[in-house]
Amino acid sequence: MDPSQVDIPPLKDLTIDNITENVHMINSRCPDPRLKYVMERLVSHVHDFARETRLSTSEWMAAIRFLTSVGQICSDVRQEFILLSDVVGLSLLVDSIDHPKPSHSTEGTVLGPFHTHDAEHSSNGGTISHDPDGSPCLVLCTVKDTAGAPIAGAKIDIWETDSKGFYDVQYADRPGPDGRAVMESDGEGLFWFKAIVPVPYPIPHDGPVGKLLKLLKRHPYRPSHMYFMFDKPGYDHLITALYLRGDPYETSDAVFGVKESLLVDLGTVNAEQAAKYGVKEGSKLMTYDFVLVSDKEATQLREKEAMAAMEKLGRRMKLYQGLPVPEVD
Amino acid sequence: MDPSQVDIPPLKDLTIDNITENVHMINSRCPDPRLKYVMERLVSHVHDFARETRLSTSEWMAAIRFLTSVGQICSDVRQEFILLSDVVGLSLLVDSIDHPKPSHSTEGTVLGPFHTHDAEHSSNGGTISHDPDGSPCLVLCTVKDTAGAPIAGAKIDIWETDSKGFYDVQYADRPGPDGRAVMESDGEGLFWFKAIVPVPYPIPHDGPVGKLLKLLKRHPYRPSHMYFMFDKPGYDHLITALYLRGDPYETSDAVFGVKESLLVDLGTVNAEQAAKYGVKEGSKLMTYDFVLVSDKEATQLREKEAMAAMEKLGRRMKLYQGLPVPEVD
Repeated sequence: MDPSQVDIPPLKDLTIDNITENVHMINSRCPDPRLKYVMERLVSHVHDFARETRLSTSEWMAAIRFLTSVGQICSDVRQEFILLSDVVGLSLLVDSIDHPKPSHSTEGTVLGPFHTHDAEHSSNGGTISHDPDGSPCLVLCTVKDTAGAPIAGAKIDIWETDSKGFYDVQYADRPGPDGRAVMESDGEGLFWFKAIVPVPYPIPHDGPVGKLLKLLKRHPYRPSHMYFMFDKPGYDHLITALYLRGDPYETSDAVFGVKESLLVDLGTVNAEQAAKYGVKEGSKLMTYDFVLVSDKEATQLREKEAMAAMEKLGRRMKLYQGLPVPEVD
Repeated sequence: MDPSQVDIPPLKDLTIDNITENVHMINSRCPDPRLKYVMERLVSHVHDFARETRLSTSEWMAAIRFLTSVGQICSDVRQEFILLSDVVGLSLLVDSIDHPKPSHSTEGTVLGPFHTHDAEHSSNGGTISHDPDGSPCLVLCTVKDTAGAPIAGAKIDIWETDSKGFYDVQYADRPGPDGRAVMESDGEGLFWFKAIVPVPYPIPHDGPVGKLLKLLKRHPYRPSHMYFMFDKPGYDHLITALYLRGDPYETSDAVFGVKESLLVDLGTVNAEQAAKYGVKEGSKLMTYDFVLVSDKEATQLREKEAMAAMEKLGRRMKLYQGLPVPEVD
């Protein structure tokens, strides 16, 4: 780069007290107003964190090594940075900000690192888990809009662990997807399938995030749950899960995902249901009525909440591609 | 883990507004008061960052991917997380906090990712760079304490790029260390060696950090400099560098390292010096008198500045192993 193109004001003699404004200055030529704002907030918080803790060089180096090991353990089937985000509550927070839910719609929860894109398509009544040790569970659900009208043709990704608490991708010799499926709601908004009763399981804790949890005296367990992800044009993307009420980890989920509205009590399949759905009488039954928010409702609510939060911060902001940026640069 | 050992208060229904206090609560069982405080500040800042930017899921995912790629490009000879810390001013800030300098002592600067532990030992008068294209530079230095007394036997690590702006470790076929040495000051606190005139160079910008700089419209260049790192029992570890005054990047260093007190004007070796030091008359000459701070002075100043900063924050803190933690837990 030609040094004559360096058109930023001179930076020199940077100290604890003036480094932040100078980093903002050198970043201020960023042409994307959103990236510029995000970087300005990020740099301010990172610097304030260091100033408020008087972060030492050896702590900084420990953090460098930790983040490096988090990155290096990542692979096609393991995302340790998502785990890290999960255990510090960031994933739950970002989902809550980006997918606000009006009352009476289904709440979201953390995606986690185990969703894949290779699940097989299944018709209503399909079997999504082939673990012979699992306790059979019939799942009967509906999906509707906030006005109560059925949503037909919604694409639903479902995934759960096997009876030992492991997702298929956690097995090195995984022959193919299991414990997961992609379904579609029918004309009445119904979808149903045969699964197994979810069990509690630890998030992967043999890596750097597990070490951090240990230092913090935290357990790595998640309460029993089954994931559901909904895609339907015109509706806000919904990632959620149903949790079994009374699970030993119901109130200490390592990744903060449990919501009262997502707790379910398992029922028992009666004779009539057994005949109708082709399952054994007495097996477990999970039912839930999901409610999706329209894109329009979600956008309005997201933007309203964003501007209210900005006002509370005392910042003069406007929306740029739906996200806040400073009103005047 | 036995669920009956879960003794934290119930966590459920976590929202944008209550997630932070609940993450603090689950982390509050950490037995190390310093780690607990650092995590409390980290979680607060990360959450506030998300709330103040209304971070979207797609931005969060971009950040997850970015951090993963930063981790994955790291190797034995490349530390991209240190680069990232450097370009956001964090490295300079942490060094300033951890190694405060009383006036009249030599200021510190960023370590950068190119220090190695395999440099050869050199006696006074040794040649540290064997690049035939480099412009020869005689370097004559002293190292003293803040009272002006010479410091004998200080271990000094010196490193610089070759004439093309690359450190030895940046060559895949590096035969061994070059452009670096470990020296020792003599009884008068003197050390001197033959090097080459430093040149400006870009930090490695073919990875994720380089991409970030590009998005921010920042150049990756550092002004010409030579690194010096001092180790001597009883004295605070000093990482510093001498910068050539008038360098085209003197006031826009990509990693914020330049300080007025570290700028040098190169001189010219005269006939007497040429004879005394065995170099060509007319070659370049760099001289500097380094001043180290004693451990005691540094500790006192660090602790005084830490407590003053905590008071300014309105936090009731005490020192634990020299670093702030809350007075009452």
